[in-house]
Amino acid sequence: MAKILCVLYDDPADGYPSSYPRDDLPRIERYPDGQTLPTPSAIDFKPGQLLGSVTGELGLRRFLESAGHQFVVTSDKDGPNSVFERELVDADVVISQPFWPAYLTAGRIAKAKNLKLAITAGIGSDHVDLQAATARGITVAEVTFSNSISVSEHVVMMILSLVRNYLPSWEVVKAGGWDIADCVERSYDVEGMHVGTVAAGRIGTAVLRRLKPFDVHLHYYDRHRLPLEVERELGVTWHDSVEDMIAVCDAVTINAPLHAETENLFDEKMIGKMKRGAYLVNTARGKIVNRDAVVAALESGQLAGYAGDVWFPQPAPRDHPWRTMPHHGMTPHISGTSLSAQARYAAGTREILECFLDGRAIRDEYLIVEGGRLAGAGAHSYSEGDTTHGSEEAARFSAREAVPAK
Amino acid sequence: MAKILCVLYDDPADGYPSSYPRDDLPRIERYPDGQTLPTPSAIDFKPGQLLGSVTGELGLRRFLESAGHQFVVTSDKDGPNSVFERELVDADVVISQPFWPAYLTAGRIAKAKNLKLAITAGIGSDHVDLQAATARGITVAEVTFSNSISVSEHVVMMILSLVRNYLPSWEVVKAGGWDIADCVERSYDVEGMHVGTVAAGRIGTAVLRRLKPFDVHLHYYDRHRLPLEVERELGVTWHDSVEDMIAVCDAVTINAPLHAETENLFDEKMIGKMKRGAYLVNTARGKIVNRDAVVAALESGQLAGYAGDVWFPQPAPRDHPWRTMPHHGMTPHISGTSLSAQARYAAGTREILECFLDGRAIRDEYLIVEGGRLAGAGAHSYSEGDTTHGSEEAARFSAREAVPAK
Repeated sequence: MAKILCVLYDDPADGYPSSYPRDDLPRIERYPDGQTLPTPSAIDFKPGQLLGSVTGELGLRRFLESAGHQFVVTSDKDGPNSVFERELVDADVVISQPFWPAYLTAGRIAKAKNLKLAITAGIGSDHVDLQAATARGITVAEVTFSNSISVSEHVVMMILSLVRNYLPSWEVVKAGGWDIADCVERSYDVEGMHVGTVAAGRIGTAVLRRLKPFDVHLHYYDRHRLPLEVERELGVTWHDSVEDMIAVCDAVTINAPLHAETENLFDEKMIGKMKRGAYLVNTARGKIVNRDAVVAALESGQLAGYAGDVWFPQPAPRDHPWRTMPHHGMTPHISGTSLSAQARYAAGTREILECFLDGRAIRDEYLIVEGGRLAGAGAHSYSEGDTTHGSEEAARFSAREAVPAK
Repeated sequence: MAKILCVLYDDPADGYPSSYPRDDLPRIERYPDGQTLPTPSAIDFKPGQLLGSVTGELGLRRFLESAGHQFVVTSDKDGPNSVFERELVDADVVISQPFWPAYLTAGRIAKAKNLKLAITAGIGSDHVDLQAATARGITVAEVTFSNSISVSEHVVMMILSLVRNYLPSWEVVKAGGWDIADCVERSYDVEGMHVGTVAAGRIGTAVLRRLKPFDVHLHYYDRHRLPLEVERELGVTWHDSVEDMIAVCDAVTINAPLHAETENLFDEKMIGKMKRGAYLVNTARGKIVNRDAVVAALESGQLAGYAGDVWFPQPAPRDHPWRTMPHHGMTPHISGTSLSAQARYAAGTREILECFLDGRAIRDEYLIVEGGRLAGAGAHSYSEGDTTHGSEEAARFSAREAVPAK
């Protein structure tokens, strides 16, 4: 009998939904690279349902409790008196999501004597101190590819919205105006622009593929070069450094995991090497860019726009300057938790749990850390080092203090 | 010596810009179908400059005045006491834009004894009573293709934004919140959805082409069927009626001109035949959809979202219900007047004027009405009939009464 501790975000302010805008989800046959979708023995939810919030429970309760396991779900994740920190001490498995990360710091790992498996319901395990997990022999797994396409759609949407000045123009409508010139003095077409991605993994490649018919010039930096036939198909130019790429780009999108090499990569100096009036979109991790350098660049005009959905810490404090800086198109961390993505990562989480509880091997492509070393997807994407500092900072802020959405 | 009367939108509330977010525009070599870009003998503006507002003057003043012509520019276009109506009586040429349309009704055409040419600086000449223009032998010309790609980008942006619930999520950020569940209970991926376009002309085809790598199922209705090789390349399914297409689509985009057959096409009955929770995006013309049917469908949940940038009349009154209806992503009419598009349609307007003033033929692809009949692009896109009624309605509203943008 295992204890599974699961940290999810809160239900909607007006309660768990009793109905949804749409009746079903499109049926996806497989991921674009041929990887099979999650293969749990069964699912106890209806795809399209809200699964990532505390009442949604990732659709796992019946499955776990009918097999005699203990299942604890909470949104209370920050600080020493949080439910998460209290329940962690004898948990065998922790499930968390990047959107509402339960920071598994070295200190917390040291307290979690029984912890054997940390599952990211989604993609990106930087909320786990991978060094400490490796040292303790804890397996870290994520649901690779479950929301990569979701994020790539968010990126293209945000590039278009910044370049075309969508959001301020929507505000003109709502304010009762018809100030066309105010809207368009910052509005351009994407056509003909140079767009580059920092990293061309599953998300970065999907972004390039989606942008190609916009007749833009595509660029990428990645330490792993794409196969030549993919470069040719996409007509994409490889650069051997981020600096080299951003110097020629009108829009840059960051699609790299957070690790020691990418942390604070876009600081004042790097942003200063971009073209004046470039756009920066970061749906990867907040700590890859320097918070204050982004604000300064928007204020000076060095950047014409910044968008993304990743912050540090998460939830972002109410006074986080990215909420009020000019020309931003930020969302909370949602790109990878559309209802479509939730159905996939909930099924994938169950697949990983079934393997763990049955003593079967977890798919290699889901593994970040196993057997005391970076493994599977982790060995490809991560470098050694810890980037989780700051859960104390996060603890200062409880999302329930925030102004509720309208 | 000719008198050219030009109606443009007002300058920004804080004055004509002294600088711009970006230093230049990408260089476009030709339109996607091979059509050459505008070929005026010269231009007197810098691409990237605001040209569509009264101070921008489409960059035409020096050219026209140095040749001895009279050039009158105004934004005052509605009502019998407007500058437009006063100056119209002896104008030889009228230039107007769809974004800020000077409605050339039969009554106004009757008063404009000298009028020989009506130029649309942009695309879509439904603000001109084409029947009356035909009867009077007035030439109607527009700058075909000048902003088709601009609009197609706007369409893809709006589909993604509605499906992913972007705009309300941005509002959560600005309000200081982190209510992920509130954002995502209406957020889906586009992947796998069925998306259809009403008409597959320059814009519709460009939309299909841009959506293809999103791994959606593509559909179109058009009275002119696409070449089979284009259908195959895009993997797009043709339908022989709008009704047949919308019944299978999760998102529908309207890319047809306004004429007698498309006016009020999306009424309560048509919207009722769509899938529950479908999205509708209309960047074509406001009168193609029924104003109140859209509001009712959003309120009932029949539509999950509506976006677009076309209204009737324009400017839209402050109390237009589309400003406040739920789940909308409207902008003022700006999709075709990005700074990128302005450079092209300003050059194209000059090309048309040069031809007219030199007595040379205007390019066939620019012509809507010539020699007393629908011609060129007009014969392909329009049907007989008038759709301009309502300039009286428009006259009730002056945009300067509107709440200025922040």
